[in-house]
Formats: sequence, C-alpha cells, structure tokens
Amino acid sequence: MHVDTERLRADIEANAEFGAIEAAEGRGRTVLTGTDANREAREHFVERLEDAGLDVRIDAVGNVAGRWTPDSADPDADPVAAGSHLDSVPEGGIFDGPLGVYSALEAVRAMQDADLDPARPVEVVSFTEEEGQQFAGGLLGSSVAVGDRSVEEALALTNDEGTTLESALESMGFRGEGRLDASAWDAWLELHVEQSERLEDAGVPVGVVTAITGITHCDATIRGEADHAGATPMGDRTDALAAASEFVLDIERAANEVVAAVSDTAVGTVGKLDVSPNATNVVPGRVELGVDIRDVEYESMDEIVGRARRSLARLERERGVETEFDRPFDLEPSPMSDRVRNAAHDAGEAAGIATMDLHSGAAHDTQRIAGVTDAGLLFAPSRDGISHNPREWTDWDDCADATRVLAGALAELAGGDD
Amino acid sequence: MHVDTERLRADIEANAEFGAIEAAEGRGRTVLTGTDANREAREHFVERLEDAGLDVRIDAVGNVAGRWTPDSADPDADPVAAGSHLDSVPEGGIFDGPLGVYSALEAVRAMQDADLDPARPVEVVSFTEEEGQQFAGGLLGSSVAVGDRSVEEALALTNDEGTTLESALESMGFRGEGRLDASAWDAWLELHVEQSERLEDAGVPVGVVTAITGITHCDATIRGEADHAGATPMGDRTDALAAASEFVLDIERAANEVVAAVSDTAVGTVGKLDVSPNATNVVPGRVELGVDIRDVEYESMDEIVGRARRSLARLERERGVETEFDRPFDLEPSPMSDRVRNAAHDAGEAAGIATMDLHSGAAHDTQRIAGVTDAGLLFAPSRDGISHNPREWTDWDDCADATRVLAGALAELAGGDD
Repeated sequence: MHVDTERLRADIEANAEFGAIEAAEGRGRTVLTGTDANREAREHFVERLEDAGLDVRIDAVGNVAGRWTPDSADPDADPVAAGSHLDSVPEGGIFDGPLGVYSALEAVRAMQDADLDPARPVEVVSFTEEEGQQFAGGLLGSSVAVGDRSVEEALALTNDEGTTLESALESMGFRGEGRLDASAWDAWLELHVEQSERLEDAGVPVGVVTAITGITHCDATIRGEADHAGATPMGDRTDALAAASEFVLDIERAANEVVAAVSDTAVGTVGKLDVSPNATNVVPGRVELGVDIRDVEYESMDEIVGRARRSLARLERERGVETEFDRPFDLEPSPMSDRVRNAAHDAGEAAGIATMDLHSGAAHDTQRIAGVTDAGLLFAPSRDGISHNPREWTDWDDCADATRVLAGALAELAGGDD
Repeated sequence: MHVDTERLRADIEANAEFGAIEAAEGRGRTVLTGTDANREAREHFVERLEDAGLDVRIDAVGNVAGRWTPDSADPDADPVAAGSHLDSVPEGGIFDGPLGVYSALEAVRAMQDADLDPARPVEVVSFTEEEGQQFAGGLLGSSVAVGDRSVEEALALTNDEGTTLESALESMGFRGEGRLDASAWDAWLELHVEQSERLEDAGVPVGVVTAITGITHCDATIRGEADHAGATPMGDRTDALAAASEFVLDIERAANEVVAAVSDTAVGTVGKLDVSPNATNVVPGRVELGVDIRDVEYESMDEIVGRARRSLARLERERGVETEFDRPFDLEPSPMSDRVRNAAHDAGEAAGIATMDLHSGAAHDTQRIAGVTDAGLLFAPSRDGISHNPREWTDWDDCADATRVLAGALAELAGGDD
C-alpha cells in the first residue's frame, strides 16, 4: 500500500489554518468546541471525507464518522474504525488529534488506491471535545459513543459561559442525530503523537501501546491558621503551606518508591496548589492541592493514594492541621487488545517499519473504546516530547510511517484479500 | 489624671460606623484611602480635635495633626506627639489604628481636665494609609513625615485604578499644604493593639515595646519544566513545585533553628506561593514565592536570608531547577527610645497599672518615626491575638488602662508641673 506523505501533510496543514495563532516558535492553534475554528475544522473534514467517497454521519453530540463500504464488504458486518479528535487545548499544536483523524482518512485512501477488498466497512471518526476545555473533563464524544454518558446528559453540559453543548453544536450546524455506537465496531485503532520521548530516544518511528494508564485525581485541603507573619512566633503557628509542602514531597517520594519497587510506569504529581490568603506577610491558613496519579497497574495507583492519605494523617498529628481528601475521578488502566496490537506489529514488519511496545501515560478516547471493543493505540514520535504547545512537532516522514502501519493494521483487521 | 473610658469608647464606636461592614462575628470596617468611608472618618476626627480646642493642620499628603498649646507651653518648643492611623485593611477590625488616634486625643483631654501645665505643645496625629492597601506598601504618611519619601513622590503614587494619591486626597478635601515634620517632635508615642497573645497570656494590660523587628521581603522564582503529568516518567521531571516545597521547609527550619540558637523573636514565613501552569495534570513548570523574614536583630534576619539563598543553590544542584532570588524590601530593626519607654513604665507605676516589655513583630508608623526622634510604642491586649479581622477585640477597660499609661507618659515627656 502506498501512503501519500504529501496528501497527508496537505490535510494536516490545511486543518492547522483553523484557529491558527501567532506563536513565537512552532505552529499553534486554538480549536475549542463551538467556536468558528471548530466549525471550520469540522466542515473541512466532512468535505475531505466526501472527497474520498465516504458516507458521512454526524451524531447527536457532534461526533463525525465517514464510512467506506467497498463492494467487497458486507455492509452489515461490524466495521473497523479509526480516528481521533480535531479540537485542541488553548494554544495547542497541530498534530495532537488531527494526525489521528487525517491518518485514518489517508489509510482508507491508501486502501482504495491499492484496490484492497476488505470484508468489513472501514469508518473514519472524529470525536467531539477530547481535550475537555469547554464542556467536560475530556473524552466527551467517546464517553457517549461507549454509553458511559447519555446523549441527553452530554447535550446538557455547559461551558463557563453557561452555553449548553447542544446549543454550541447547533450554532455550528453539528448537532446531528442518533448516537455513534463504538460497541458496534469490530475493532478500533487510533494514531496519536507520543507526547514523550521514548520513541525519539529509541530511534523507532512507531509505538504500539500495550496499555493506557488509569488516572486518579485527588483533591486535598489542608487547614491551618492564618496569622500575622510578624506577630506570630514560630512556635505558635499552624502553617498550612509548610504542611502542604511536606505533602507534596510525600507524594513525590511515594511515586518514586513505587517506581523503584513495583511498577516503573507509575507517576504521582501535585500539579495544582492554591494558598489562602496568599500574602507574603500572612502565615498561610489554607492550601488546596490537586493530585494526579497514574499507572498501568491499578494496585500501584492505590498504593500511592494510600500513602497520600497516610501523609495527611501524619500531618494532622504532627502539625495540628485539619485535612480533607477526596478522590473525585478514577479511571482504571486500559490494556490494549492483543489482536489489534498484533495487527499493528504485523503491519510494521510487512512495511519494513520498526515498531516498539510502550505504554501511554496520557489519556485518549481509545481508553474509553477499549471498554466496549478490541482497541489499539499507535504513537508517532514527538520531538523532545513536547505537546499541548505550538512547539509540538512530528516529522512528516514519521507521520507517513505511522500511517503506513495504521493502514496495514486496518487492512488486516478489515479482513478480505490483499 | 482621669481618663474617661466612656468618652474614649464613644469616639472609637463613632469611628467604627465609617466603612462599617456586615460581619458574621465581631465588628468590621473597610476604610481605604480616598473612599467615602475614609473621608467621613477624617472629617469626624477633625471635628473631635476641634471640639477639644486643638489647632488642626492637614499636610500635603493628608496627614492630620491637632496641636494643643496650653498657656504653660512654649509655643516654639518641639512638641511631643502621639497618634496612629484611621485607615484599615479590607474587612478589618475597629481598634487597629483608631485606638491609637483616639487614645492620643483622650490623653490630651485628660491632661486638659487635670489642669496640667506642660512645657511643650502636644500633638495628636493620624497618618495617611498605614495599612498600604491602595497607594504604597504601607506606612505612607509617616514615610513623608520622616523624609524617606518626598511629597511629590507620594502624591504621584497610584492605586490599582490608576488614581493618584493627590487626586484621591483632593476628592476627599484632604490634600493640604506643607509637610508634617516628625523630626521636629521632641518625642513620639503610639498606642496600638498587640495583634498577638503575649499580654493576654501574661495577664498584663499594657505592653511597652522594646524594639520593632526589621522586615525583609524576598521574592524567589523556581523554574523547572512544565510537562504532561501522565506522559513524563518520574525520572525525567524537573518539578518546580517539589523543589519549592523543599524551599518552604528549608525557610521554616532556618527560622526555627535561629529561634532555638540565637534569637527567639526571629520569624521566617513563606506566605505567598504561585504555581504555573497550576493544572492538576501538568508537572509544575514555575513557582514564585514571597518570603517574609523579621527579627529585632538584623544579624539573625541575615542568617535566614543566607540560608534561603543556600537552599536555592542546593535545589539547583540537586534538582536541576533554575532559581532567582531578590530582596526588594529591607527595613532594619528599630529599637525604641529608652527615654520614652521609661516614661511609659513610670506612668504605669504611677497609675497602678502593670506594664511589661515586649517586642513588636508587626510594622507600625512608629518604626519610621524612630529614625528621626525618640519614639515609643505601647500595646493593649488583643483577644486571642486576632487582628485585621472583624473579630479583633480589646476590652474597653484595657483601652482605658493603656490610655492612662499613654497620658501619663505624654505628660512626663511634655514636662512642666503636674
């Protein structure tokens, strides 16, 4: 099969114009659900799907799917599907999402050009709001496609301005009908940029993900006493920030020890910390922290959460602070399907493109899809591991190599002669 | 001398009406420079000075002084002066500032009622914006009165809305003429609420301050690398918040060790900490911290600053962060005048009111005045040490006892027969 590097590049570069921003370095875009940029990106994608002869469907939450049903395929067979998302974080890069969407389209075009005769239809998909900047915490469209969230719940979600997803979709002309049903897919495959440096370090162009880590988000609150920084002797303080600092270091230590002893893919991060009243001359009275814990093993996530709780209990005893701990978000690790992984490795071998196994620490729509059908995730190298940033970059040759593996894997999964 | 508790209370309660706020507990007010509340408080104060027969002068930066020149006094003699400020922090209490202003007026009335014959004029003063909520970092009016800041510089200061101090004063009718000159005072004495619990703990109604601590404010910046919290392995991180947490604990440890070994009045506080980008799922890339260091000994302040610098140097080596350190504000400790302190202790003894020595960890206009003339500072007990809060409270009897000591000390400093 021949993947057309220039055609793929032209699609991704055309898409990069929608929501394009000025960037000191690199090439950036801001494409948030419901904006003109999002509407333009969606309309252009529909046009490109139709140019390739695909039947386009928009579901009630704005998920876009283009289906190729060649004469060789049983139109009633469960399709194989591939895709990603077109929305971005604010001032994001041009590959995160669009590479997966347009490489899936390019894979179909390559199959068409090669006159393949797949036994199953092939579907190219763009999910609504993967990044979660407006209406939900992320993975919005896929949550509806797998049935974790109803269409009604999703449409009623509001952004910070109080606009509902439904009215945002209507204003773009992308409030469609029905529900894209991921459980009806025979298999699913997403290509995404890696967002870390393992492929680059190994000099391998394509990664085959073994598992997507689970994610736990914890909120911790530490309450001390806000006091005058000058008039309150050291011995009379209950300093919430000093206690919080011990907590931050305890989380870091817990993650490092789990990495050393049990699971080297575990991570624990305190990414958010807000101090009250946050004035140089006032002993901090309250600190709120946001903790992110991930691993491919749920047990090691639980171990870090347990150590976070024990840290707070110790701080209550030793420093007299009051603490609260909550675990509002918890997603178990998602192993990828062996069948889909094998198809990817086979495709790499057939095309003479090296592949390697790795895990994903970032969340992707694929981790929802993995709950309802055989799912896989491919990575293309990210230069210096940078993403969510205009400096995000993947060489066009690497985009094409990964698309070759994607196309080969989809062809194998779709069955038929080749 | 008879201090009239009810007259003093009536003055403080009348003043508490200006800028009064609803408070769940206690009695609060918000009196910021240039507001209607500030104008009303100033106008009422002028009226009360005139009621007592004092000659009122408003200087160019809005400092208000009422002079009592009895027949016994040489009108050309350097006056003794006392006072404080009428502005407040947002949602502050009713004693911080007004107690010192109205107790000084009550002291003059008590001297008048007792037919004292002081040899020097006595001046009752309210300084502009001690709290520093609008136009400067604090001690604004006194900075001009001691010549640390010129009238022109002060008038050109702007608040967050871009209003100059000059136009704020003009809008209130308090942009006067000339400059109140603190160096022309023979002595100065301020009564203030303690803002900590030492008097309450000791059961003593009046504190005589030995020294006001120096204050150093330091700004530290710690730069790591903002990275994806899921995709970045523990070993590949340069987490600015983990480094900042070590710094916070190093400051606390340094202050505790200086307290244990050298000077038990030393304090070191990280009161302000801002994380970027401050998202739960992003490894923190930058942290900015505000550090407050105080003591009555400049050497121990310097010791804590030195340890802060060494902590950052260690974090650069051990964690690979980049750091910056700045010391934008530095005020040396201000020992109080022995002559004024002795006058206060003598007055306490004469009135049968216990006094005790203590230091002040909070900044007051008096620390500027101490640079140009003999200055003293008295404390009245603060219930539970609470201040800058509607729950700030000093019993009226304690207000009166402290005013008796103030009046006696002023009478002694003003000389003449009694």
